[in-house]
Parts: sequence; structure tokens; C-alpha cells
Amino acid sequence: MTAVNSEARTAEQAVSAWLEEFNAALAAGDADAAAALFETVSFWRDLVALTWNLTTVEGPDGVREMLVNTLESARPRDFRASEPPTEANGMVESWLEFETEVGRGRGYLRLRDGRAWTLLTALQELKGYEEHRGVNRPKGAEHGIHPGRLTWLEDRERETAELGYSRQPEVLIVGGGQGGIALGARLRQLEVPTIVIDRHARPGDQWRGRYKSLCLHDPVWYDHLPYIKFPENWPVFAPKDKIADWLEMYVRVMELNYWGSTEAISASYDEEAGVWDVHVRRDGEDLHLRPKQLVLATGMAGVPNRPNFPGEDVFQGEVQHSSEHPGPDAYAGQRVVVVGSNNSAFDICGALYEVGADVTMVQRSSTHIARSETLMELGLAPLYSEEAVAAGVSTEKADMILASLPYRILHELQIPLSDQMRERDRDFYERLEAAGFEHDWGPDGSGLLMKYLRRAGGYYIDVGAADLVADGKVKLAHGQVDHLTEHAVVLEDGTELPADLVVYATGYGSMNGWAAALISQEVADRVGKVWGLGSDTTKDPGPWEGELRNMWKPTRVPALWFHGGNLYQSRFYSLFLALQLKARQVGIPTPVYGLQEVHHTS
Amino acid sequence: MTAVNSEARTAEQAVSAWLEEFNAALAAGDADAAAALFETVSFWRDLVALTWNLTTVEGPDGVREMLVNTLESARPRDFRASEPPTEANGMVESWLEFETEVGRGRGYLRLRDGRAWTLLTALQELKGYEEHRGVNRPKGAEHGIHPGRLTWLEDRERETAELGYSRQPEVLIVGGGQGGIALGARLRQLEVPTIVIDRHARPGDQWRGRYKSLCLHDPVWYDHLPYIKFPENWPVFAPKDKIADWLEMYVRVMELNYWGSTEAISASYDEEAGVWDVHVRRDGEDLHLRPKQLVLATGMAGVPNRPNFPGEDVFQGEVQHSSEHPGPDAYAGQRVVVVGSNNSAFDICGALYEVGADVTMVQRSSTHIARSETLMELGLAPLYSEEAVAAGVSTEKADMILASLPYRILHELQIPLSDQMRERDRDFYERLEAAGFEHDWGPDGSGLLMKYLRRAGGYYIDVGAADLVADGKVKLAHGQVDHLTEHAVVLEDGTELPADLVVYATGYGSMNGWAAALISQEVADRVGKVWGLGSDTTKDPGPWEGELRNMWKPTRVPALWFHGGNLYQSRFYSLFLALQLKARQVGIPTPVYGLQEVHHTS
Repeated sequence: MTAVNSEARTAEQAVSAWLEEFNAALAAGDADAAAALFETVSFWRDLVALTWNLTTVEGPDGVREMLVNTLESARPRDFRASEPPTEANGMVESWLEFETEVGRGRGYLRLRDGRAWTLLTALQELKGYEEHRGVNRPKGAEHGIHPGRLTWLEDRERETAELGYSRQPEVLIVGGGQGGIALGARLRQLEVPTIVIDRHARPGDQWRGRYKSLCLHDPVWYDHLPYIKFPENWPVFAPKDKIADWLEMYVRVMELNYWGSTEAISASYDEEAGVWDVHVRRDGEDLHLRPKQLVLATGMAGVPNRPNFPGEDVFQGEVQHSSEHPGPDAYAGQRVVVVGSNNSAFDICGALYEVGADVTMVQRSSTHIARSETLMELGLAPLYSEEAVAAGVSTEKADMILASLPYRILHELQIPLSDQMRERDRDFYERLEAAGFEHDWGPDGSGLLMKYLRRAGGYYIDVGAADLVADGKVKLAHGQVDHLTEHAVVLEDGTELPADLVVYATGYGSMNGWAAALISQEVADRVGKVWGLGSDTTKDPGPWEGELRNMWKPTRVPALWFHGGNLYQSRFYSLFLALQLKARQVGIPTPVYGLQEVHHTS
Repeated sequence: MTAVNSEARTAEQAVSAWLEEFNAALAAGDADAAAALFETVSFWRDLVALTWNLTTVEGPDGVREMLVNTLESARPRDFRASEPPTEANGMVESWLEFETEVGRGRGYLRLRDGRAWTLLTALQELKGYEEHRGVNRPKGAEHGIHPGRLTWLEDRERETAELGYSRQPEVLIVGGGQGGIALGARLRQLEVPTIVIDRHARPGDQWRGRYKSLCLHDPVWYDHLPYIKFPENWPVFAPKDKIADWLEMYVRVMELNYWGSTEAISASYDEEAGVWDVHVRRDGEDLHLRPKQLVLATGMAGVPNRPNFPGEDVFQGEVQHSSEHPGPDAYAGQRVVVVGSNNSAFDICGALYEVGADVTMVQRSSTHIARSETLMELGLAPLYSEEAVAAGVSTEKADMILASLPYRILHELQIPLSDQMRERDRDFYERLEAAGFEHDWGPDGSGLLMKYLRRAGGYYIDVGAADLVADGKVKLAHGQVDHLTEHAVVLEDGTELPADLVVYATGYGSMNGWAAALISQEVADRVGKVWGLGSDTTKDPGPWEGELRNMWKPTRVPALWFHGGNLYQSRFYSLFLALQLKARQVGIPTPVYGLQEVHHTS
């Protein structure tokens, strides 16, 4: 009892002493003094609170420079522990709250020997523009008698009739999957007039249209949307049509202005007026929308990478990119060649095998495979699981803890996890490799999460189909495709793979491809590559960026934003993007610190 | 610090000592010993845990008799405090958990001087039939390869096609408002095949069809459905169309088998087969459903009480029961007489006044009015409010605390509240009475909640319209209607009220009227009056019943059940009704203790 108390006291004292010096340095505008509170190897990650950017600065020098440039405008202050700090293995950790000139934030601090190793500062709300929730939730009924008042329904109907016609939205979100929806919901709560458009008819159709056995590969605790959590009876890995229904419901009850069956045809920025001119086609009708801000939430996958092999014109069967594959039902008994060996390839092979197709997978390069359950239990469970919830780690806290781990060292934290996974699933990997499958753990052994962040590909989260390859039920071929003949795919080594259907599970380009398609190649090039950390590994060339390129933060093209990622990212980062858009709507100054350089255009 | 700790210890010791003796008495089958642990004036309320009934027994004698009849079959045991007991003003209170032979329960205990004043025991789940949630949530994706497996969507589509056609439901719920929906959701989670039917096309249409300015009169914290809570941005008093959308989406994501546009035409019980034969008309198609259990959830309001005054045939205007009133829009500038002075009457008068109708309210008897905000702040806030949530009183806990207060003494707890309200809103009541409005606080001054429980009427929750009466903007007339003429309503005292529209806000009959309409008068009479406590006050004749008549518990007609009430009741009591239905489905013995006598048929 005494020991625990004294440790708690020590942790509290350490945090309180550090915060006192830190607040004093900030108040005095003394960047040097503040920087001196950080370890030599240390990281301050700021999400829109000081920098109006998503930025990680490193070491005292990085901290100093960032503060020199932001202190005067942001005026960060009043950092305080929001719950009792903890201490373990010499690391003191504390939840923080703080203020800036224009907003309120939350943070997370890790101290070692009295100096900061990591600090996360994340803006939560803008003063004067707080969301109406909890004690500030809207009243609903306007009690009293108000002749001529509009009911909620009449008000909604009027808004629906006007927005995009007689009244222009502040923000247009192109793409109404989970990303566009989560951001749309936050902007709605922040009272930023927004339209979300999607080419599919109904919210969720993005999921409904995919192959029929698809379930989320991430577990439920990681997948919540903002505002409304999945209920306790929600499946761990939700089937695609169930997620689709949820998204549809969510759009309705969160009152999004969601235009289904609407395509964005082209867009250009009117510099003078400071608005976009976006040509959209809604249910066949041509319209021009004039939003101030344009968000591309068309999927982190980007434009499909569709190879064009010689002989496609003579091939007698069907050729599809994985994004076009309708599911297995029409291909029972047929010979299918799937080019590629990552997530889509495995999912499609598994579903085709289930209906009795004769399936061959063409592996062109090595792939990392992680078993879904192993990944969930070893990788996510400490933060996202029923046990985490029971231990008080809400989704909101888990998101912040995850965000507090600097990208720069994330791979170091992942490597031991790979070792555990390798050990736990030793038989599985031995069987796969015995079957000739080329398996890797990433360039530095850091496994799946880093592949996801660096290149958004090169892996498969195994939900069963890997066994088919290990058992030879799905045949395996190796090498590059050379050409197609009337009835076969021919590899560079001359191997001939008879095929009625060829599926190119060959992945997707960078998201700025969407900007090229919608706006212009020039604008896409100005934005540069989207996603990836600059880790100088395959498909993620250096230099080091510190954050995911161009995601959820200002790009080199004013008023153009990129949003997307998995459900966790859609949920968490939509807040910071929404706050950036809100600030611009109401004219809060948003001086951006550390606007990224463009090093690569795709 | 020491004082607090010592009080906490005392409370804990008191509860622990009491529970030890209580558990020992139960284990020994010693009803006398258990009864001796209760105060002379004391109450044990059991919700399906021991009695397979909703029953309150009183005093040691009541406890003894109940235990003599239930101990052997129910075998209640292992009562334990589930969190540290508290003590205030000599009353020790404790949350409990316990088991029975077939289930697990939660409870709430109040001790005074070492003996029980109140005990609530509420069944939560049946062993072997626990809901799949939290750590037991369904997996969703069936990882692995399963040729021919159905996807979630295919499975749902098959169920939808079969249920009610090639496969009969276990339970048919007639009425798909919040009551039917909440119960349907629980039965779904308990894997009891259920169909919910409603004559409206879409879930929520029950609300959509009502007058357009309607908002919930109860605040959001009181209104949650099971499983999915309203989000933090949900309005305090939700507009009817917003609630409707929520219900529609809830039905979808909770996967209810909900048949809209379906009317129940007639029903009869096939004693031999042990099933109901329910003739329904679905989208114009005649069908016979054969459920084992029939639940009437057609609204606690029962069949409209529609007077038939002389002269209706000569009256040249429109006559409507309040349930038929379409809202005010068509009546701008017209003369409207609203007969009645309770909730519906006020709401309708207010909305009509807003569009510029000339409105007269006919008060036939006195009414209790409580201002919505006052009611919320004084009445509900300790249990249902943002402050309660912040203080750790979840909706689930609030429901249990409310349920732990015995109906017998509830009015005594309400009378001081009336005094506070009278004081707080003195001006309001003085103005109303000065305008000639006959106002009461219930027969014993116990106010709104007791009127609701005793007679489900006789009050108005003021959201603004009372001022119209106080200010003379809605005119007030007094007395009984004698007859109608071509253009007027004539009261017994000869007063003539010119009218283009007459609305009978004359209330509703008892819910067993639905059984008369659907099954037979004989069955309705066997069931007897539904709702009310037997308080021997207006519209709630004695003798004392101890619980709401026939609600959520076995009736005198096997396999016929009544469900309904406000959102709180729909949420809370649906659990106990669902557990009763589940037990019958799977053949768990359900010996009912204290099956109510029928004292009144309407």
C-alpha cells in the first residue's frame, strides 16, 4: 500500500514538476527552456493544436524550432494532468489537458528521468465553436409557442432542398465510405454546411458491392465510428453487408447531407472567388457545386493499378481488376488465375475455391501474412479488445495512446511483436513456406502495421485462405506475367496457366491519382504522393516525413484535402481534419507550421 | 478520511452480515428465518427471478409466503454485494448479484438497523442462454474455408423468406412501436424466432403520423432503447420524426423481422396444438401465423375512447378523435373545439394556435399540469440526466433504482416533490387558476408519476401550451358536452361553442380492449383490466395490486402478454418479458407465484 502510494506520488510529482517548468517556459515565450525539458532523442507530435498541421518534431532542436514558430500565435498554456499519472519501468505517463489561444486540447506525456520522451498534443475543440453534446446537447423541442416555426422535419427538408442549389456548402466531400461519413458527421456537429457525394446509390454500397464473403479484417473495438459505438452484440469481424447497413443508418440518424448516385466529373479552383467549381452528376442531372473546401475521401487505395499485358485482346476469357471482381458465384468450376498475392488476392482466391473454381495464384513478390487472431490478440488487444475496455481503455483513450507513439520508432516496437507472432504461428509459417510461398516480415522485420503505414500493401491478414495455398488447394505460381494467350496467362519463365478468368489483384496507385482524374495532373503533382512515411523501404521512398504524407492535413494545394484509411483512422483523424475546416470556415487564423515538401509525385 | 472509511466499513459490514444470514436461510430452505430479516413494513419486489412474475410482497409474512412457494424451485442463492455499499441517513444501500437454479440476477437492497426495508431481485439472464455480447459477442467472420457457406446477408435473406411462411415464429408481437421494437430486439439477442407486425409501412411511422410539432415529453436519458444508446449529441426532447428515423434504423441494424403494412385481423388459441392462429394481412395478402406466444404491444393507450354525442350526424364540420388528428396545417383560421384537457388536448391546441386557428378547450374535469423542465430537473434529474451519468448513474443503474422503489409507497415519495414544484412554479399555477383552469395534484397530492401509473392520464406535461390557456389565447370552456349542432358544440349548461373542427381528446380505453378486438370479449374479460395499481383512486379502482396490472407478466390467459409504456418501460421491462418468453421456448419450468386475480374487466 505504502509502496504503491509512494510510486503514485513520485509519478505525480514528476509530472507536476515537469508541467510547472513547461508551462512557465511557454508563458515566458522561452522556446529554449521548453526544449530543454525534452530528451535528446524525443518526439513531440502535434495534431493541429500548435501547428495547424499533423507534425512530429524530434529532439530539443525540433521542439525549439517548432515553438519559435508557433508560440506567439498558438499560445499553448495551462498544461495539467487530467488523471493521476502512472509509472512503470522508469517511464512516467500522464494524460494531459491544455488550452491554446483558440482551443482546448488533450495530450499524452511520457517522462523518463524528468524529461519528456514523447509528448502528444491534440486539439479537441475550438473555443466558441464547441460541439453541442452532453450537457450542451440541443434541447430539441423548443418549448413555448412560436407561430410559424419549422419543425425538425421541415427544417431538414428545407436544408435538403436548398443545399447545393440555392445555398452552397462550405465543404464538399467526394466519397461516402466510412471516411467521408465520419468526417461528414463531425462537420455536421461543428455546423459546417457539408455535402458528401458518392457514386453508389446508398451509403454502404461501397461495401455491399464487394465480394460476398468479405468481413472486416479489423476487430470491432478498432472500428467504431464517432458518436455512436457499435453495440455490445456486434460481431468481432463484421460481415460487409452488416457494416453497410450500419453506415446507412449512421448517415440517416447523424443527419448527413449525403448525395448517393452522384459522380464528381471535374473540378477546378477559382482563385479569385476562393471556391472550387465542382461539376457533379446527380442522378443523371449535371450540377456545379461551389464549396470553399474540397475533400477527397475516395479511398486510401487510390486509382486501381491495372496492368495491360500483351495478348489481353486475344484472351477469350474475362479480365478484371480486383476492384471489379463481382464475387465468385459466376465462376464455379472455372479456371481462374489471380495475379498478386496480397489481401485482395487471398480473399478472392478463398471465395472462388469455396464455390469450386480451379484457382491459381501468381506470386510476383514476397508477401507478409499475419493470422487475424494472432494479430488481434498480440497486436491490438492491449488497446482494442473487450479486456482493454474492461481495464478502462476506452476507444478514445486507445486512439490517443496509439497516436502518441512516434512513427519514427514504431517499427522498433513492432519487431518484437513479429518475433512473438513467428513463434506462436511457427507451424503455419513452416507449412506456407514448404508450399513454396515467399513470405517476408517487412524490410526490417516490423511486420504488418508498418507495411500498412509505409505502402498500404504487401500483406495479407489471414482469415483462412492461406491454408488453401499451404495445402495446395489454391495452386501457386511464381514470377511476372509476360503475356496472355487465347486461353492462358503466360509467365516470363514460360509457364502457361490456363484461365477462363484473370483477376489482377495488382493493387492501387497513390491517392493523388484521384486529384489527377478529377482536377488535373498538375494539381496532383503539386500535391505529390499521398500516404507513406518516407521510410526509404519498398514503395515508400525517403526522405523521412514524420507523418503520413498529405493525409488529414494541409497539402501544397490550398483548400484541397485527403481523408481516408481504415475505420480507426477515419474515426480518429476526421476530428483533426474537421477542426481545420471549421477554423477556416469561421476565419480563425490557421498559420501552418511545417507544411510538407513534395519529394515524389506518385 | 477515517470517518468516511469507517462509515464505508460499517455499511459493508451491515450488508455482509445481512447477506450471510439471508444466504444461510435460503440455503436451509428456512423461509421463516429469511422473513425475519425484513422490517415489519418492508417490500421485496421480484422481477421474474423467483416468482416467474412481476410481484411485490410486503412484510415478513409476504416474504415468508413467497419463499415457501418458490424456494424449492427457484433455489435463489449466493447473494453478494457487487460494489461497496453506501450509507446515508441511517439507510444502507447495496447493489447485489445472485443466482437461481436457472439464472443470474441483479438486485438492490436497502437496510435499516440491520433489517431489509426494500429488496429488488431482477433476473438478468438464463444459464446456458446468455446473450452473445461483450466477451461473448459473435465472431462474425467464420475464418477458414467452408464451401457452400451462407454469408450473413444470405442467411438474413433466407430467414426473411422463411419466417412466417415455411417456418413459424415462436413469438408474434402485434405492434411495432418502441415497445414492440425493444422487445423484438431482446428476443433476437436471445435467439427466440420472432416477428413484429405493424399496420404502418415503416418502423417509426407510429410517430411520423402524429401532429407535427410533437416532441418527446421525456428527456433523452430516460428514453434509450436497449443495446444502442442515443449519441451524446441527441436532443434532450427529440422531435417525433427524428425518433421515427432512429426506430427505423434500429430495426434494421438489430436485425428484427419486422413486417410493416401488416394488420392483425383476428386471433384464436388452439389449445390442443398450443399455438395461436393469427390471421394477418400483409401488404394485402392474407396469412395465418402460428406463434406459440402472442404479445400485444399496440400501445398502452388502448383503444380510443370515442364519445358519440347527439348531433354528430348534423354537424357540418369535421369530427376527429385525437388519435386521428392530422396536425394543424389544414385548420389555419378555423374554429376548433378540443374536448378534453390532458396531454393530447394541450398539444393539439398549441399546434393549432400556432397556425392561427381559433381554439377552445373544453375542460370536463380537473387536470394536473407539470412544467416539463421542472419535472425534468426535480423529478428525473437525480436518476436521468447528464449529471447522473457523470456521477456514475448509468441508465441501467437508474432503471434498477427506480424499479427498487415499491409502488405502495411511491406516492409518499412523490408528495414532497409536488410541494417543491408548487413552490418553484407558483406564478405559473396562479396564472392558470386565475384563468379559470381547474388544476389538481392528484387525489393525494402525489402528482404526475402516480397519475401515469394509476390511470395513464389526467395530466399534461407542459411544453408551452399551458401559457396559451393562462393568457386566454386558447379559450377555455367548462363542463360536459351535451350535443352538436350544425356549426357548434353545445355544453350541458347551454354554452354554444362555434366549431369547424371538433377534436375529441377523450383518451383511450384499457389495453385489454385490443384483446377484445383481436381475439374475443371473453378473452379480454378473462385478462381483465390492464395498467393501474389498484390504488382506489379515480380510474384506478381497488383492491391494491402491488404491480401494474397485466403488464409484462403472465395474464390469466396462457400465452397472451401485454407490453408497452413509455420508452423507459419499453426498455426496462422488455428484458423481463423476453426472459419469460425465452424460458417457455426452451422448456425451462416457469412456475408462476402470485398470478394476479381479475377484479375489473376494463
